[in-house]
Amino acid sequence: MIGIFDSGYGGLTVLKPVMEVLPDYDYVYLGDNARYPYGSNSDENIKVFCEQAVEYLFSRGVTLIIFACNTASSVALRHIQQKYNKDGKKVLGVLIPAAEEAAKGKKIGVVGTKATIRANNYEVEVKKLNPEAKVYSKACPLLVPFIEEGWHAKPEAKSILKKYLRSLKSANIDSLILGCTHYPIMARDFKRYMGKKVRIVESGDVTAVKLKDYLKRHPEIEKQLSREGTRTFLTTDDSNKFKEFAEQQLKMKIKLPEKVVITPTL
Amino acid sequence: MIGIFDSGYGGLTVLKPVMEVLPDYDYVYLGDNARYPYGSNSDENIKVFCEQAVEYLFSRGVTLIIFACNTASSVALRHIQQKYNKDGKKVLGVLIPAAEEAAKGKKIGVVGTKATIRANNYEVEVKKLNPEAKVYSKACPLLVPFIEEGWHAKPEAKSILKKYLRSLKSANIDSLILGCTHYPIMARDFKRYMGKKVRIVESGDVTAVKLKDYLKRHPEIEKQLSREGTRTFLTTDDSNKFKEFAEQQLKMKIKLPEKVVITPTL
Repeated sequence: MIGIFDSGYGGLTVLKPVMEVLPDYDYVYLGDNARYPYGSNSDENIKVFCEQAVEYLFSRGVTLIIFACNTASSVALRHIQQKYNKDGKKVLGVLIPAAEEAAKGKKIGVVGTKATIRANNYEVEVKKLNPEAKVYSKACPLLVPFIEEGWHAKPEAKSILKKYLRSLKSANIDSLILGCTHYPIMARDFKRYMGKKVRIVESGDVTAVKLKDYLKRHPEIEKQLSREGTRTFLTTDDSNKFKEFAEQQLKMKIKLPEKVVITPTL
Repeated sequence: MIGIFDSGYGGLTVLKPVMEVLPDYDYVYLGDNARYPYGSNSDENIKVFCEQAVEYLFSRGVTLIIFACNTASSVALRHIQQKYNKDGKKVLGVLIPAAEEAAKGKKIGVVGTKATIRANNYEVEVKKLNPEAKVYSKACPLLVPFIEEGWHAKPEAKSILKKYLRSLKSANIDSLILGCTHYPIMARDFKRYMGKKVRIVESGDVTAVKLKDYLKRHPEIEKQLSREGTRTFLTTDDSNKFKEFAEQQLKMKIKLPEKVVITPTL
């Protein structure tokens, strides 16, 4: 099974394109809604939350986990990979695929939560691939609350977005990484303000394409993945609320998600 | 010791007036910053989080706990009181003091998080005291993110506030309960938009006055409280971040808060 892990609902924007590109596999989505959002937490806590999620997904028979959450990918992925990438098990993130795609540009903007921008890993990864690139980062902490509230089409949301993007616009960037799973919902506004010349990189889309390629190059991982086309949803908060939100996002009916407790018994 | 419990920093706006009115007692403040905010969680989770916090504070020698968090008070307080108010221990909230004060009016507005407004307990308590009163409630979910971000003085925050308050303004309310510990930070904006005739009820201030009165009427509780004037701060997330924020809010120096884990070993 392929596990998709997110701090809440955001990772559904990654699950959707991944299921479209690779429909045959079995997927388990875990949303840690009880502790959402991770973005305002300390790095230390985020690492602990991610360890608990990974161990829980492995205990459910998952062998390959995608960290759909940008905050988790930026802050904890390297730590998690060092600890858990062994015995045929694998944890991947959305950061590298997006950085690879963006690194084709010269002046690259990155937007994300405070924790994602503070971790600075997009810049590090882009520069590994393209040392000449200039990277401009901007935390946009109010966008997620507006989107969660369904108020992202209001003039106040667009005005806030412009304030956030002003410095990236002045820097004349050619590419912009939407480094948060919520932001694709405002993709049109990002495009409108940044202009047609700026290439927008959405993690979900590039992760799906790169994952397909990854599985071709790693048959030892691929052969472990079951392929019955099942989709299982797990949440640490209310099942009904999750079902409603997920069906709206994925535009498909799903079985009632299972409410799970991922905090370990110490 | 008196325990002040909040989902994060918000309860500092309650601790401050309480310490001013009753300076001699020993206080322990617990902020569950790791799982902040509670407002978007399900009632079931909020109850579990509150139980864990209460048991933790009792284990640290606290005998009287004030739920400073409006969400916790609205959703979980009755449940917590039924379970834990015994053996000389007591849990109180900010809801009743604010409802008592507001119930002097005739047309009463309540603003708070989604969970607080959904729980509808302000309306229930106000109507117990004043059955003739009309109560108008409005959830204002974007105010906390703006305040946390320090962007509450921006025009977008004020514009959002006006949208939230429009229905209360049309209803010609005479009193308004600020049913969230963050909102006093925008008290001036609430006052400006609602006009001078509307009495603004802030939970912190009324809780401090009512607590003093409560301790006079309940010597069996009061005599258990130690009075050495100590202040202890506990957080479930980063200690340094908490210290910085708390010192700014309380306008006093504090010892480095202790990072604690309140999730029980099941």
